[in-house]
Amino acid sequence: MAGYFISFEGVDGVGKSTQVELLEHYLQLYGYEVVCTREPGGTELGTVLRQILLDAKSSDMALSEPISDRTEALLFAADRAQHVDTVIRPALERGAVVISDRYVDSSLAYQAGGRGINDAAVRQLQHIAIDGVLPQRTYVLDMSAQQAHQRLQHSDDRMEAAGDTFFNRTRQAFLELAAQDPQRMKVIDASLPVQEVWKSIKQDIDMLLHTGD
Amino acid sequence: MAGYFISFEGVDGVGKSTQVELLEHYLQLYGYEVVCTREPGGTELGTVLRQILLDAKSSDMALSEPISDRTEALLFAADRAQHVDTVIRPALERGAVVISDRYVDSSLAYQAGGRGINDAAVRQLQHIAIDGVLPQRTYVLDMSAQQAHQRLQHSDDRMEAAGDTFFNRTRQAFLELAAQDPQRMKVIDASLPVQEVWKSIKQDIDMLLHTGD
Repeated sequence: MAGYFISFEGVDGVGKSTQVELLEHYLQLYGYEVVCTREPGGTELGTVLRQILLDAKSSDMALSEPISDRTEALLFAADRAQHVDTVIRPALERGAVVISDRYVDSSLAYQAGGRGINDAAVRQLQHIAIDGVLPQRTYVLDMSAQQAHQRLQHSDDRMEAAGDTFFNRTRQAFLELAAQDPQRMKVIDASLPVQEVWKSIKQDIDMLLHTGD
Repeated sequence: MAGYFISFEGVDGVGKSTQVELLEHYLQLYGYEVVCTREPGGTELGTVLRQILLDAKSSDMALSEPISDRTEALLFAADRAQHVDTVIRPALERGAVVISDRYVDSSLAYQAGGRGINDAAVRQLQHIAIDGVLPQRTYVLDMSAQQAHQRLQHSDDRMEAAGDTFFNRTRQAFLELAAQDPQRMKVIDASLPVQEVWKSIKQDIDMLLHTGD
């Protein structure tokens, strides 16, 4: 396909959206059409599914039956298939750069790593969901639980709610995925100042766009 | 598991719901707890997903983007996983007889057979969705397109809308599935009078309940 596909991954609170925005502006300056998107929720269907999942987990839930872990994994996969078919692939085919805040590695890290759902089943499911559409580059923004705590202490307490054990298990899963596919996945030290993080990404993107590697 | 799981399959209009009802009453006379259910739509989530799929296909659709075939297959799989986890498995574990109007074979026949979606992908997906919960018996109610036309001519024109080619492809897919798993799947000639069809099913069910085979 003509365009470039770049994803950002990492645990909540490591600064993905800031870096997505910096990359978007940088590529627009170079004249690229840039499509910024995210998962879950990058399509209308995704927004509906996300609402179903959130409702089912809130106290005033719309469904009286709980959504099982397997069902949730399949709904996220449906969201991803729709995202690929209606947003990502069409944009890549017309030569745009697609930047997605989370993609396939989040499912692998959260479902298999964080939740402990059968790893082979999650991988088979993702194979079906992405239908061969894999990013050329995935930036894993990485920091320790302590650093994330410090970073978020003046904003909110999402970290406390999620718990350090879950954070560490998911972080570890991202690092293992990156070790298995070092050509595509670059681990970036996200505990550094925003401009330092951006400098690493910019260097790598320049290389990707100029050499295709 | 303690209970029995029985599914009915076949193209629309072959008389599944009548036979489901006859079997339900028969088993209740013998003192079984009978749980009658159906796919899609056997759970609250399934009802919501079904509405999304129908809305997306109707003219006054809620989503402006079309739902892709892959997405639809994943949504049906999510419905099935939820159906297994919240309805079917709990009922079987407490010793009930579960009768489902359509189950896994419908996805195999309609998606892989009727629509021509990649067969291996559909099978992998179903493997994930059913999580080992397969019926002891599946009755494939079978008739030709001509016989179904005659049967439905005084009721509605669903058959005309679906088209004979699609009917024949799906029918053929059901027959091939049955040939691959003759122990579980019994093909019943559904062109016979209702009581004749029921007699064949009753004979087979008596054998299943008495010999477990």
